[in-house]
Amino acid sequence: MARRTASFPLLYADTARSADMLYFGGFSVPDPFIAFGVRGKKFAVLNALEFGRAKKSSGFDTVLPLELWFKKAGDRPGAKASTAEVIALLAKHYKIRAFDVAQDFPLGLADGLRALGLKLNPVPALFPEREIKTPAEAAALREGNRCSALGIAAAENLLRKSQIKAGKLVLDGRPLTSERLKIAIEIACLEAGALSVDTIAAGGDQACDPHERGHGPLRANELIVVDVFPRVTATGFHGDMTRTFLKGRASEQQQRLVSAVRAAQLAALATIRAGVNGRDVHQQCLDVFATRGFETKRTPKGSVGFFHGTGHGLGLEVHEAPRMSTVDYILKKGSVVTVEPGLYYPGLGGCRIEDVVQVTDGKPKMLSSFHYDWEIR
Amino acid sequence: MARRTASFPLLYADTARSADMLYFGGFSVPDPFIAFGVRGKKFAVLNALEFGRAKKSSGFDTVLPLELWFKKAGDRPGAKASTAEVIALLAKHYKIRAFDVAQDFPLGLADGLRALGLKLNPVPALFPEREIKTPAEAAALREGNRCSALGIAAAENLLRKSQIKAGKLVLDGRPLTSERLKIAIEIACLEAGALSVDTIAAGGDQACDPHERGHGPLRANELIVVDVFPRVTATGFHGDMTRTFLKGRASEQQQRLVSAVRAAQLAALATIRAGVNGRDVHQQCLDVFATRGFETKRTPKGSVGFFHGTGHGLGLEVHEAPRMSTVDYILKKGSVVTVEPGLYYPGLGGCRIEDVVQVTDGKPKMLSSFHYDWEIR
Repeated sequence: MARRTASFPLLYADTARSADMLYFGGFSVPDPFIAFGVRGKKFAVLNALEFGRAKKSSGFDTVLPLELWFKKAGDRPGAKASTAEVIALLAKHYKIRAFDVAQDFPLGLADGLRALGLKLNPVPALFPEREIKTPAEAAALREGNRCSALGIAAAENLLRKSQIKAGKLVLDGRPLTSERLKIAIEIACLEAGALSVDTIAAGGDQACDPHERGHGPLRANELIVVDVFPRVTATGFHGDMTRTFLKGRASEQQQRLVSAVRAAQLAALATIRAGVNGRDVHQQCLDVFATRGFETKRTPKGSVGFFHGTGHGLGLEVHEAPRMSTVDYILKKGSVVTVEPGLYYPGLGGCRIEDVVQVTDGKPKMLSSFHYDWEIR
Repeated sequence: MARRTASFPLLYADTARSADMLYFGGFSVPDPFIAFGVRGKKFAVLNALEFGRAKKSSGFDTVLPLELWFKKAGDRPGAKASTAEVIALLAKHYKIRAFDVAQDFPLGLADGLRALGLKLNPVPALFPEREIKTPAEAAALREGNRCSALGIAAAENLLRKSQIKAGKLVLDGRPLTSERLKIAIEIACLEAGALSVDTIAAGGDQACDPHERGHGPLRANELIVVDVFPRVTATGFHGDMTRTFLKGRASEQQQRLVSAVRAAQLAALATIRAGVNGRDVHQQCLDVFATRGFETKRTPKGSVGFFHGTGHGLGLEVHEAPRMSTVDYILKKGSVVTVEPGLYYPGLGGCRIEDVVQVTDGKPKMLSSFHYDWEIR
């Protein structure tokens, strides 16, 4: 398997925004800092506040003191050296003329470095090996999905405890809203050590717009999509799971819809293995929906049916390589993907069921676990 | 007052990572998209999922359909046009040869655009006018600080309800930990509509390291720094407040420490006004500490005393212009700054008190409010 590792990567980022930086050093730093690789060894340049902690607990082979290198680069009162000057000096010291950088490397710094004679080569992926998850990374993703499941359970619990009054859900004398579900989910994640942002708990037609997170009172007999993709604070790895619930009684059409989505998910799961094209996995879902008469099309009011990908890679970012959609992408052993077919028809409602698996040479390994009962009486 | 506005700004970012993008369109989009300005008019290029919502509720003057412009730029099955090609086509259409971009504009895209003949000029600040807050923005910052205050109140409440057993704090039969305070703070913020990340609730020597967020059991008679800087989900604006508490009985030295910090804060507040140098505000705090015998110095184990700035700008980012520290920075009318002197001495403990004000021609306007009682018996 081709696993090219950039031998001279250069990064300038904080670890909250840059998954590459968090991956490179395995160490959280809230402010942007310099890191680079020299023939397989990892270097970081950190200020006094981070220096001791980085030496003790980061994955960097060498931690250099920022203040010293700024001084060497010409720092003096009234004339601070620039970050570009510090990097240029380090490159000279380590005899490096060209660095590989990520597509999102900051242009201002890049222009400064190029003006000082350094070559920068933006590559499609700085650490393509991020796609293959080690056992420890798979365990971190399983933990992320444990948090997702706790969030979904918190939402289900509120739906179970709620009562139906005049077609609306009521709990503790107040309307049960999307907002209340989301807060319960996010609290459950917080208590489990993870941060759930942009949580989705959307009912009825709202659930038919994938970018709508849900707002306002929830209604009985309506499909409610609950999608939870928290980030575990300790590791930076994510969970990403979706379940669809209905409080009350499902119509026959709603039952057919949910059952088609679950059948599509099972068909996808039965296809996923190392060497398979993600497009063929996606096609399995399209076939199930076609066979069962669920059409996908564009309408003047937006798309209906199944109009997103079957899955995406999950790791330090919610969306990363690989993809399982209409584009070619050969699945590699060890990669981790979501499997999340869905159907959306305004008037009838939306349903998405999402789990996470690791690709193997045989059956994929489940990294998420939550039941599939969806009708709540 | 010089308020240069980039007349041809170009952005390619999502609004979670880029405060500039959120500022430009006043509209949240989770994935990176193209936006640019032409002679004071704002343009966004968005896909079908975001198009309708952006037309209805964003600050963009013109919303262009992404799919159409990709097609115009040469998109066809098997050969997708690049984002650079789309931007180059738009530039040609609107007769633009050069764009201003932020320092953190992505290098990969920049190289592509320059190869297509566009000039990109990375400027120090794409929207320097972000520094001056409108009345609506000041109200949003006040709301952020209302959330901060709710978080601090939640922490104080746990400290009040806790009991002292063998020198440690106990609540509901379990040790009261930094983690429990942080979860209570973050839940209070969530329920108020804000997201508090990297919350600090650190006691004893932990509070003397500004990058330590606090962990483990809290002790009696120890200073506990509580720093809460949530982001309001609806607006993207932040709060940023700190209070220092002590459960039990404060020593005379601890009382002198806290009283010096509050005196420094009041001295800074009495100095802040439009036209004043932020460095002179910072000097007020240094003077108060010097007069009261609180020394700042570097030790082999790290710095002690007052070793961070007195304040920073607050807005769509937690740290933005202006600064009040050892560097020159003239405060402008309408800018919003934190005022947060602190003292840190391992063995004795740390104390920081932080409020937020808007700079005026006279007394600064308080945008935060919480009491200053800190000893909890």
